[in-house]
Amino acid sequence: MKNLGCKLLLVLTLWTMSTEAFPNGSSLKKKCQLSRYKSLPPRLLETFKNVKDKFEDTMLLSDRKCNTKIFHRNWEVKELSVHDRVILVEEELHLTIDVLENFTDPSLSEQLSSPLKTLKLIRNDLQSCARHQPHSHQRSRRLTSWLQKFHAAKTMESPGCLEASVIFNLFRLLNSDLKCTVHMEPCA
Amino acid sequence: MKNLGCKLLLVLTLWTMSTEAFPNGSSLKKKCQLSRYKSLPPRLLETFKNVKDKFEDTMLLSDRKCNTKIFHRNWEVKELSVHDRVILVEEELHLTIDVLENFTDPSLSEQLSSPLKTLKLIRNDLQSCARHQPHSHQRSRRLTSWLQKFHAAKTMESPGCLEASVIFNLFRLLNSDLKCTVHMEPCA
Repeated sequence: MKNLGCKLLLVLTLWTMSTEAFPNGSSLKKKCQLSRYKSLPPRLLETFKNVKDKFEDTMLLSDRKCNTKIFHRNWEVKELSVHDRVILVEEELHLTIDVLENFTDPSLSEQLSSPLKTLKLIRNDLQSCARHQPHSHQRSRRLTSWLQKFHAAKTMESPGCLEASVIFNLFRLLNSDLKCTVHMEPCA
Repeated sequence: MKNLGCKLLLVLTLWTMSTEAFPNGSSLKKKCQLSRYKSLPPRLLETFKNVKDKFEDTMLLSDRKCNTKIFHRNWEVKELSVHDRVILVEEELHLTIDVLENFTDPSLSEQLSSPLKTLKLIRNDLQSCARHQPHSHQRSRRLTSWLQKFHAAKTMESPGCLEASVIFNLFRLLNSDLKCTVHMEPCA
């Protein structure tokens, strides 16, 4: 009876260890609290719409030419695994926040102060999710290749190009990439 | 009795002549059939939205820098008289059609074929309205000054700048300037 108890304890310990080391989709779901971003505050989107309109109004007076399409990809987020989506959106957000924080137009910087706080919250939550990804998770080849080009472009392009690219990508990032990621399951 | 008849005929003739020579707001209303543009076909706006998105996706790869903000003004259309609004929107439409007809990106040109027909119809109707304006109508100083700058910018700016300026102005033109004009009365 004592032997049976020891065996049961051993099996339970091993099961717990394996679950911790290789969490599956459902445990990621529990640790990733992204569901609150399924619908974003209308005020956030409204502010970004105003910022985009104002930016378009003056952007042509500066040199914005780019050598590459920084955020471009010929596949959709839904084609990535849930884990890969988290990494992709975290990287997109990282550049977005970095550029918006250092915006050259001071009138836009003022408006961006509050939305930036929200973007940082989302990034923190994504980072927390990324930390809970299984160690065994292998990034897909398409994500790895995209990240390489993305990081190269970031350092190569002018501030003017980066600002325009980030502004033009804002709504795809929030309405498509992020939404598909927070659903934690296949998305349409 | 014969004399009274002659006098009545003379009065009627003079009244008709004066009405033709100096039509007021209400007669312009009758001759201007713009009310059908109070709400534009959703498909038109949807196509322009797609065109704008696609344009933003590639526009940064070309030089789009402008020397001036071509469509910029520091007053609103509602501040103009109804007659001046017709002239303003006709001029904006004229450049818009001209640029969209000669778009450098062939994939966008294809999509623009049907919306261009609608824009030309609107322009024709505006031209017809402009022809029925009273000869006594004096363009306001602010419209005259705007038109001078607008025509100078058109000839001075690069095709890349003109394309971007026209695309960025599309929704202000259709949703604000045109709507305010077709109402033929003070607009909010």
